Amino acid sequence: MSIAVLHGSTRDGGNTEGLAQLVLDGIPHTEIKLRDKKILPIHDQRHDEGGFDAVDDDYDEIIREVLKHDVLVFTSPVYWYGISGTLKNFIDRWSQSLRDSSYDFKGTIAQKKAYVIVVGGDNPRIKALPLILQLKHTFDFVGLGFEGYIIGKASKPGDIVNDSRAAVEAAWLNDELKAQV
Amino acid sequence: MSIAVLHGSTRDGGNTEGLAQLVLDGIPHTEIKLRDKKILPIHDQRHDEGGFDAVDDDYDEIIREVLKHDVLVFTSPVYWYGISGTLKNFIDRWSQSLRDSSYDFKGTIAQKKAYVIVVGGDNPRIKALPLILQLKHTFDFVGLGFEGYIIGKASKPGDIVNDSRAAVEAAWLNDELKAQV
Amino acid sequence: MSIAVLHGSTRDGGNTEGLAQLVLDGIPHTEIKLRDKKILPIHDQRHDEGGFDAVDDDYDEIIREVLKHDVLVFTSPVYWYGISGTLKNFIDRWSQSLRDSSYDFKGTIAQKKAYVIVVGGDNPRIKALPLILQLKHTFDFVGLGFEGYIIGKASKPGDIVNDSRAAVEAAWLNDELKAQV
Amino acid sequence: MSIAVLHGSTRDGGNTEGLAQLVLDGIPHTEIKLRDKKILPIHDQRHDEGGFDAVDDDYDEIIREVLKHDVLVFTSPVYWYGISGTLKNFIDRWSQSLRDSSYDFKGTIAQKKAYVIVVGGDNPRIKALPLILQLKHTFDFVGLGFEGYIIGKASKPGDIVNDSRAAVEAAWLNDELKAQV
Repeated sequence: MSIAVLHGSTRDGGNTEGLAQLVLDGIPHTEIKLRDKKILPIHDQRHDEGGFDAVDDDYDEIIREVLKHDVLVFTSPVYWYGISGTLKNFIDRWSQSLRDSSYDFKGTIAQKKAYVIVVGGDNPRIKALPLILQLKHTFDFVGLGFEGYIIGKASKPGDIVNDSRAAVEAAWLNDELKAQV
Repeated sequence: MSIAVLHGSTRDGGNTEGLAQLVLDGIPHTEIKLRDKKILPIHDQRHDEGGFDAVDDDYDEIIREVLKHDVLVFTSPVYWYGISGTLKNFIDRWSQSLRDSSYDFKGTIAQKKAYVIVVGGDNPRIKALPLILQLKHTFDFVGLGFEGYIIGKASKPGDIVNDSRAAVEAAWLNDELKAQV
Repeated sequence: MSIAVLHGSTRDGGNTEGLAQLVLDGIPHTEIKLRDKKILPIHDQRHDEGGFDAVDDDYDEIIREVLKHDVLVFTSPVYWYGISGTLKNFIDRWSQSLRDSSYDFKGTIAQKKAYVIVVGGDNPRIKALPLILQLKHTFDFVGLGFEGYIIGKASKPGDIVNDSRAAVEAAWLNDELKAQV
Repeated sequence: MSIAVLHGSTRDGGNTEGLAQLVLDGIPHTEIKLRDKKILPIHDQRHDEGGFDAVDDDYDEIIREVLKHDVLVFTSPVYWYGISGTLKNFIDRWSQSLRDSSYDFKGTIAQKKAYVIVVGGDNPRIKALPLILQLKHTFDFVGLGFEGYIIGKASKPGDIVNDSRAAVEAAWLNDELKAQV
């Protein structure tokens, strides 16, 4: 079983990545930091005669890499009660993948499992629940199994170490993933 | 009372803008199409010593224009059960505005009213509710009054004319706004 | 097409029933006021060897009546951000119906359509959304189609007449139902 | 610090109470099993001239007992994606307490902290989130601090022991509460 971690945060070594490290500790995985990639917002051409134009950015390369793995871990800071615009742009582009005949996006991603790790500063265990429900709908649409999520609480750099509850949940998920590798 | 409409859709003349037209029919307003602007994803520098670096794009100009109006109408197609990445990037940048000492973002926006218009294809009156809850949290955070929302259902170009329920809600909101202008 | 309206409110002539009247105006339907019936809370015996004991109340008679109709309209005031305990007790008892071999509860209800009308006093178009999502899960579980909902705002007796938005939505649904009768 | 646990389940020794036992292990607390009490559904008389009539059941005694404690733990099986009708009836009656001049319900409960423990069989970590959001609104209305929740997954009697994630969360909360006693 191989694992890809998609980081939606926009700052190095932030709390979300800190929590993800606890989850992935000692587990081989591929890290993809979306902030280091160029991913343009989707231009909705679903209904254009010729379909989507090719886009000159890193999206295609990333999605092909992602689809080589069995387990996808999506991580994002909670920005304004949602995933970051950086991660949202990446997911928005799935609409393009759904219409790309050069590979079977839906058939392939439907065989995988997803986990979500998010960290927010403003009562995230309540206020990030709509975010979780959105991702549930998103994963359902493509048949991707939503296996679990961890919501951490942190604001200032390094704060995440003080969230003892997120820590025990991360340790639990670490065990869970190790048992599957 | 002046109205600014912020369009988050990525295609000209789409269903979301069609529904917005019904709402704004005969009402003077400023249109801002985010897809025609350059808005970079936020780079989270909230905790950097020097704060946020200046960003070379259209965000500042747009937010200053927005803040001149009394009523803000946010419109977005429902992309993957959330607002478009284009609109999300715009809102993410509010974190930068909150720390910009050249104007009082929070104090100013807290005096305004917001409406939301979204259109989706997959059971949006249920599956877009997390999106509405997110925007509620977002508006609450800055003190912006959330006065109402309309959820339309449409997929193919032009479909929105078949959503008779969205049409009566749009007519109602049109009356409401006209009474305030 | 026949319609049954299940009222979950606990007071005569309240705002919820007022809004329901607008929706059903001129449309033949069966009214069931749960407050006038005796419905005990469920005693969970799903896992008892002998299954559920017979319960001496009005539930069985009501559910059999309900199942004779094609369209079910559930109405409830928003009590503490949920449906009333009176309506909740009724729905909780569906667990008993699911195991009652004297009729095919799930097979029968799955052929019907449901509408929901709720009225609350505290920002119900936002704060009653979790209630709507709960009923969506509930209807999905038994295969009952969730065709639509109307959320009204009112507190004091008679207040509902001031909710012009709920009124246009009710008129729309009235047309919709009339076209189906 | 004293703790009251309000059980909303309707069966002895069920999974929800099993999970609650892990949370409360070794911690003195008062147990209140609502199923053993008589609590009538509310009859909404908020707008009657004379207010609410006295009700001949156990509600008053229970709420007075509850208010003697500092921490309130609400437990409920997830019935139809909500709290049980038994617990809902109890909470619905708070509307009566809010108007009872013989004690200061809101002023008193606002000084307390609440935890929630729920257990469901159908993907509860997603499908019980609306339930959590409802209780958040409920607690906010009376100023009761919502300190945390645990969602367990179980269906058949005894199943809860297989939910290793709920177990680590329960152990965490047990530590947390012990530190406060």
